[in-house]
Amino acid sequence: MILEQIKGPEELKSLSAHELAILAEEIRTFLVEKISRTGGHLASNLGVVELTIALFKTFDLPKDKIIWDVGHQSYTHKILSGRMGEFDELRQYGGLSGFPKRKESPYDSFDTGHSSTSISAGLGIAQGRDILGEDYRVVSVIGDGALTGGMAYEALNNAARMKKNFIIVLNDNEMSISENVGGMSRYLSGLRTGAGYNDLKKSVADVLGKVPVVGDAVIHRLKRTKDSIKQLFIPGMLFENMGITYLGPVDGHNIPALCKVLREAQKLDHAVLVHVITQKGRGYGPAQKNPSGFHGIGPFDIATGKESGEKKYPSYTDVFSRKLCQLGETHPELVAVTAAMPDGTGLAAFGKKFPDRFFDVGIAEAHAVTSAAGMAAAGLRPVVAVYSSFLQRGYDQILHDVCIQNLPVLFAIDRAGLVGSDGETHQGIFDYSYLTSVPNMTVMAPKNLWELRAMLEFAMDYKAPLAIRYPRGTAYRGLREFTRPIAYGKGELLYEERGIALMAVGSMVSTAEHVREKLKEEGYTCSLVNGRFVKPFDRELVARMAKNHSLIVTLEENVLQGGYGLPITAYIHEHDPKVRVLNIALPDAYVEHGNVSLLRQGLGIDSDSIIRRLKAEGWLEGQKRLQKEGHRQENHE
Amino acid sequence: MILEQIKGPEELKSLSAHELAILAEEIRTFLVEKISRTGGHLASNLGVVELTIALFKTFDLPKDKIIWDVGHQSYTHKILSGRMGEFDELRQYGGLSGFPKRKESPYDSFDTGHSSTSISAGLGIAQGRDILGEDYRVVSVIGDGALTGGMAYEALNNAARMKKNFIIVLNDNEMSISENVGGMSRYLSGLRTGAGYNDLKKSVADVLGKVPVVGDAVIHRLKRTKDSIKQLFIPGMLFENMGITYLGPVDGHNIPALCKVLREAQKLDHAVLVHVITQKGRGYGPAQKNPSGFHGIGPFDIATGKESGEKKYPSYTDVFSRKLCQLGETHPELVAVTAAMPDGTGLAAFGKKFPDRFFDVGIAEAHAVTSAAGMAAAGLRPVVAVYSSFLQRGYDQILHDVCIQNLPVLFAIDRAGLVGSDGETHQGIFDYSYLTSVPNMTVMAPKNLWELRAMLEFAMDYKAPLAIRYPRGTAYRGLREFTRPIAYGKGELLYEERGIALMAVGSMVSTAEHVREKLKEEGYTCSLVNGRFVKPFDRELVARMAKNHSLIVTLEENVLQGGYGLPITAYIHEHDPKVRVLNIALPDAYVEHGNVSLLRQGLGIDSDSIIRRLKAEGWLEGQKRLQKEGHRQENHE
Repeated sequence: MILEQIKGPEELKSLSAHELAILAEEIRTFLVEKISRTGGHLASNLGVVELTIALFKTFDLPKDKIIWDVGHQSYTHKILSGRMGEFDELRQYGGLSGFPKRKESPYDSFDTGHSSTSISAGLGIAQGRDILGEDYRVVSVIGDGALTGGMAYEALNNAARMKKNFIIVLNDNEMSISENVGGMSRYLSGLRTGAGYNDLKKSVADVLGKVPVVGDAVIHRLKRTKDSIKQLFIPGMLFENMGITYLGPVDGHNIPALCKVLREAQKLDHAVLVHVITQKGRGYGPAQKNPSGFHGIGPFDIATGKESGEKKYPSYTDVFSRKLCQLGETHPELVAVTAAMPDGTGLAAFGKKFPDRFFDVGIAEAHAVTSAAGMAAAGLRPVVAVYSSFLQRGYDQILHDVCIQNLPVLFAIDRAGLVGSDGETHQGIFDYSYLTSVPNMTVMAPKNLWELRAMLEFAMDYKAPLAIRYPRGTAYRGLREFTRPIAYGKGELLYEERGIALMAVGSMVSTAEHVREKLKEEGYTCSLVNGRFVKPFDRELVARMAKNHSLIVTLEENVLQGGYGLPITAYIHEHDPKVRVLNIALPDAYVEHGNVSLLRQGLGIDSDSIIRRLKAEGWLEGQKRLQKEGHRQENHE
Repeated sequence: MILEQIKGPEELKSLSAHELAILAEEIRTFLVEKISRTGGHLASNLGVVELTIALFKTFDLPKDKIIWDVGHQSYTHKILSGRMGEFDELRQYGGLSGFPKRKESPYDSFDTGHSSTSISAGLGIAQGRDILGEDYRVVSVIGDGALTGGMAYEALNNAARMKKNFIIVLNDNEMSISENVGGMSRYLSGLRTGAGYNDLKKSVADVLGKVPVVGDAVIHRLKRTKDSIKQLFIPGMLFENMGITYLGPVDGHNIPALCKVLREAQKLDHAVLVHVITQKGRGYGPAQKNPSGFHGIGPFDIATGKESGEKKYPSYTDVFSRKLCQLGETHPELVAVTAAMPDGTGLAAFGKKFPDRFFDVGIAEAHAVTSAAGMAAAGLRPVVAVYSSFLQRGYDQILHDVCIQNLPVLFAIDRAGLVGSDGETHQGIFDYSYLTSVPNMTVMAPKNLWELRAMLEFAMDYKAPLAIRYPRGTAYRGLREFTRPIAYGKGELLYEERGIALMAVGSMVSTAEHVREKLKEEGYTCSLVNGRFVKPFDRELVARMAKNHSLIVTLEENVLQGGYGLPITAYIHEHDPKVRVLNIALPDAYVEHGNVSLLRQGLGIDSDSIIRRLKAEGWLEGQKRLQKEGHRQENHE
């Protein structure tokens, strides 16, 4: 095997074109085999094997800097930079990250995770290089899907001013995670697939001279659309218009062609965009047929391509998806917006059922939020379904476009709390903080699947900004017996005793339930509150808990600052200072990748850790005495 | 006067072209006269007088919807929609807003303030119209500067899919607030000013057929650049490429030409962009000569154009500006980034002194932050100088690109706290909340001008993400005697007594000083702490205050949730539950426009209001008794 000899870029330099092609196939086999066991991002990685080889061959790594946009396509990059031996631990707790990490390797020059950052980061690095008088190359590799994000455009707009070499590789696989949308997609599609060379085109092309085309496998033909010949007849016009030299398109699976165009690009003293056409899932049948299904995937069977983990119970995403379709029938004003995640958010079903009321805006959270605000202003009831960490991109739009006007936009926030193997960039542990500080915003979190349904029903009648956040994975099925109707700003008292009151929100209600069971076993009496509303929190219920309990424990899966617990502590401090309060929340730190249960243990928010902490820090000591006193007092009442 | 007869759009319909031209001049005179007294946005409003008249004439308002991007150019819109009588109260507390407000008038269809939102909002409204089967027109008016913001591009990308009429008016005045930058600017500049019609161009144009050009005053000539003829030879190619019909360019001061092109645009069943060329400051000499100076201006003398308010003392912006230039000399790694606000942030001086180390990226906060992260990764020390409310646009980039990698980017956050007459969209009252919940971020605020300088010096040696926030207006010059060197995470004890401890940050230190003086007059003893670090707050100092005081008052100019006070309350509750705590902060609400002193009074954060509240809510009652006990205890120690 050639692959086994590759310890770094040096070993690539001496390989022939034929050997490089074999190496590419070996890497594909390796990727399919490893990811079939660990899970991970498959389709995107299979698409960039040759491109990565060509980059490692033509650049001087790690002196030169590659920035991988989004970063989940960096597996071949990791293999070729000496990390092949770590793939058994890919995305596991303590193991190899699924994304580039500067702290992991000098070959990883910038951490990525969210889309459309690579040109900004690369441009910054190139500017730094020039100011410090250093001499290395910078190349940002960005997908066509990521070009639907406004940041990429802001960066392109600035890249045009570069006076030294800066290379953007457009990895064009005709889709992002799902189908690509919008004008840019249409534009790229014209560059790629155009047909219908005609005389007019020819005469124009003759006048204009040679158009740079590299790579035999890509046929450079351009179509005449009904709009007019003005469209698309010069590849790269859009980029050239902005002042960025365009090279391509080039076949992204032809290593010699790739090396040739990359070497051309290195010669220019300004920004250059190399347009590379790749195929997602390349070389593995099931992924080629269904690249979206093999975007991020769990362990699977190589022969059939089927995921091995049997899915028994519905996820919160499934529950949301079905309920929204149902609500769509009775609420004609209900519309749904996704930023390129129709499958991940569960909106695809709604989109299929109500295609005219469904908007996939591309990887464009800012536009998603503000266009939803516009729809709400026009009389619709928009639902923006989005992952917690991606909604960070729409923060100003929530604050400035939705909430100032108090418009009834519903945010269905998926992947909230710890998400697991995607790690730091994807943990949804800040949404309470960035949402509850915004005026006019209401924030809810369901304890189980039935409550998510009830909250969505509640949302239909609530005419102001509202966020419902729920975690990744199987929806909790416990506590079904508690179905008190939802009232604005009111929590739900599940068990009322004396002594300790557990006040939890969202995913932490089930954790609190387990804490309560364990405390009960040890003889403590314990109330349990399902907060339901993170903002506004239920002051009346907090006061009631403070009256009859000497310890209140708040529990949330969010960082402490700006979250659920601190305002409750302050409220209790003002009204019942004798009642002790413990805030269980995530620490002020980023959380790395790994299995969610292990992460919860490591962070001290699982029930065992919480019990241990209650004992170790002495929270229960006074408790036992107070409990007895409580009983005596009860007798006197 | 024609203007006086205009109560709404109806009165415009019967006016002749000549009368409309007179009306435009009358509006200009009115604007200059009124703004010279109240202050406000002048140059941008003078630029769109004819455009607004043409919109009011050709559209059916308020049934049709106009969305003004940014919105500070909506004065003529307000005049023509019946609000002429309210201009004496423009931007005053309780008076007319300087921005479109839905609650102010049915003619204001969407609130704006931050840049680049209008296409998203307009597209959302148009989509709502179509789904609800309604029949009205939607037009988004956006400046060329706002096109440097990524959101606008996300929206254009989606607008291309519209199947019914949606009109974008590009109000192209060749500058945003300051000079325009980047590829898009270059592109538009090509459309506008192109010269050098040549045979090649002609032959191509002949082949392509008629290019729509409207308006005599705009010469439609296109230049041949050194790059190649491929550039710019078809106006609007970029937009047409995206699938948006391009009409123009048209003279934005020729009302009949404007009406003609707008009527053309109304006929199309998809998205259309009308390119209008206007002149900022049009018709008023001083503003024409110096549009940037007349962007937002205080009261001024009409004859000379000079601002009447004499500026005695430097603002925080001035202090920052000078100090940064000084630090630039000794720190060659120091670079500065602004998002189209070189004057407002005070970075212009640094840019003049160190042009190679200065980056104006356009109205592109997301790119500003991530490119700064890239520069930091490359070894530079970037300062991103930005207004508090605009940095909301970079929230995800701070969290995801700067802080995960713990990169040494300094955020110099101007216009933090209440900003006054710009109102809800511009108040900088959320930055503590959105910054302190981000791991690895440190947040500081200076008490006076000398401390801002000291903090900037401190920042040069601190190698991780750091934010320094300071308010609009004159830098505080009191408390100069307190100059304890800055140590990480440590506050500054200004006065130490017993009884009441005031713990304040930033602008509230001077307020707390006044509170203390008043309390002292009434016989209370009172300590005063300058927090310096909002995050991390000084636990040791809080513990010390808790030990010797029975009431701690925290003071901050930020909303309560996620701010400075709540974590301190929680800390005290855990360690010294008997100590009472009052958190003075802004309420959970947006703050309207008005004079900052009046706003502070209305919100209860000026010293008189705080004293009144301390008394009315009984915070001082126990205090007096404790004070006496405190003296006795002292004697026993």
